[in-house]
Amino acid sequence: MMSPTSLTDHSKLCVHTITTKPWSVEESMDKYTEAGIGGITVWRQWLEGRDIAKVGDQLRDRNLEIVSLCRGGFFPSKTEPGLKEAIEDNKLAIREAAELGAPLIVLVCGAVPGQPLEESRKQIADGIAAVLPLAEEHNIKLAIEPLHPMYADDRSAINTMASANEVCDQLNHPLAGIAADVYHIWWDPDLEEQIRITGEKDRLFAFHICDWMTPTADLLNDRGLMGEGCIDIPGIRAMVEATGFDGFNEVEVFSDRWWSQDQDTFLKAIKEAYLKHS
Amino acid sequence: MMSPTSLTDHSKLCVHTITTKPWSVEESMDKYTEAGIGGITVWRQWLEGRDIAKVGDQLRDRNLEIVSLCRGGFFPSKTEPGLKEAIEDNKLAIREAAELGAPLIVLVCGAVPGQPLEESRKQIADGIAAVLPLAEEHNIKLAIEPLHPMYADDRSAINTMASANEVCDQLNHPLAGIAADVYHIWWDPDLEEQIRITGEKDRLFAFHICDWMTPTADLLNDRGLMGEGCIDIPGIRAMVEATGFDGFNEVEVFSDRWWSQDQDTFLKAIKEAYLKHS
Repeated sequence: MMSPTSLTDHSKLCVHTITTKPWSVEESMDKYTEAGIGGITVWRQWLEGRDIAKVGDQLRDRNLEIVSLCRGGFFPSKTEPGLKEAIEDNKLAIREAAELGAPLIVLVCGAVPGQPLEESRKQIADGIAAVLPLAEEHNIKLAIEPLHPMYADDRSAINTMASANEVCDQLNHPLAGIAADVYHIWWDPDLEEQIRITGEKDRLFAFHICDWMTPTADLLNDRGLMGEGCIDIPGIRAMVEATGFDGFNEVEVFSDRWWSQDQDTFLKAIKEAYLKHS
Repeated sequence: MMSPTSLTDHSKLCVHTITTKPWSVEESMDKYTEAGIGGITVWRQWLEGRDIAKVGDQLRDRNLEIVSLCRGGFFPSKTEPGLKEAIEDNKLAIREAAELGAPLIVLVCGAVPGQPLEESRKQIADGIAAVLPLAEEHNIKLAIEPLHPMYADDRSAINTMASANEVCDQLNHPLAGIAADVYHIWWDPDLEEQIRITGEKDRLFAFHICDWMTPTADLLNDRGLMGEGCIDIPGIRAMVEATGFDGFNEVEVFSDRWWSQDQDTFLKAIKEAYLKHS
């Protein structure tokens, strides 16, 4: 196990807009700036009804680094129209990222209950390949986020770093890489080696943090803030940094519990937990 | 993907007593026998306050094959007394299995939130090694059940067939093997190869079936009956049978939904789902 360096300021802290779900993108950008947070990852729902280029300008005006747009993906389908629709939506996401000025899109790759995961993985690789030319045109990176195996039924057929690396190997494109989220991968006995490989191949594009609660009351919306659960976040960050990664540490917490509380208090807790437990 | 043979009768159907949780072991044995089910796996709680040898006789009188005793394990601990207590409990389980006449104990190996999984796996291997001499004395097989990664926090540090095989390689003992449960392993891209290896090493000791619900409302008690979810059970059974496995197909369903219904109706549904979807 590597020893992690300490985090001493919030310059590399990025918060996902979904983490402070009750806030609009305008509220989020003001609150994050006021809190001295370095970066923001914008979820697409937060851009609905907005002039996206203008939101990008507002973020840049505040010196908030736009880390990524969340999320594209959901490529698999049992029907031809479904497959095409997914590709169109991912092209739209690429155009949105370009308008916003986000350098990267996170991909939750998708799965269809009952369809063999192998088939879904093939559709995912084909889907990414189909949108890579547009990504190239706008210079937008696409980051496959391996999802925890408990989401293999309907959210992603890519459930380990190894599986994500395999798809990236097939795509073999400098804009196709991986977003590593501790929540999804912490349990993997092969984690250190896979992070090493990901770095070696210049495809470790993003790093997400949160914690795993014991017990976990809900499969989707019971993530913990760093330090509330059992994940060795500093240990995994050390593996990530050993590859040369110097990007943001993105806090992505889905939590009915935290969302029901005062979000200013929550943001303060995020900042503290970031320094103490990340 | 291999093509599975069809199941045409209930001779290889085994039901876990926890599947029909509202029934006592006495009710279970009568109901299972009446339903023409071939085997039973007894959970230890069902033996509390019973003369265990007598329960074994009652089961044999009904020609119900005793497939296994569930469960031992939970070896890891952060304290020395905790480690010792776990070993004592597993020895007790071995004695109970011998009294009952069960040839096998299923091991849910355990994990301690916050303790590195690597350390827990070492404690698991040490724990099993410590009880193997007693298992040998009574000729009781010990089957490591790899648990779904969503249980890596506090239920098991062994979350893939590969990981279970690694511990078995270390133990290198004919009584140390694996119980493969489709619920825990269905998502694994390496499944077919790992099942093949397990069979090749003569350590595929048990096969458990149920289904994965979409959505899954509860991490513990929302399993589906075969056919209710997305797992390709016949496909996995084909992989298992390709190794030469000819043991029971054990139905292990934890479901608040099914437990709240009439258990006679449920048992009928199990028999039907077994032939149609297993």
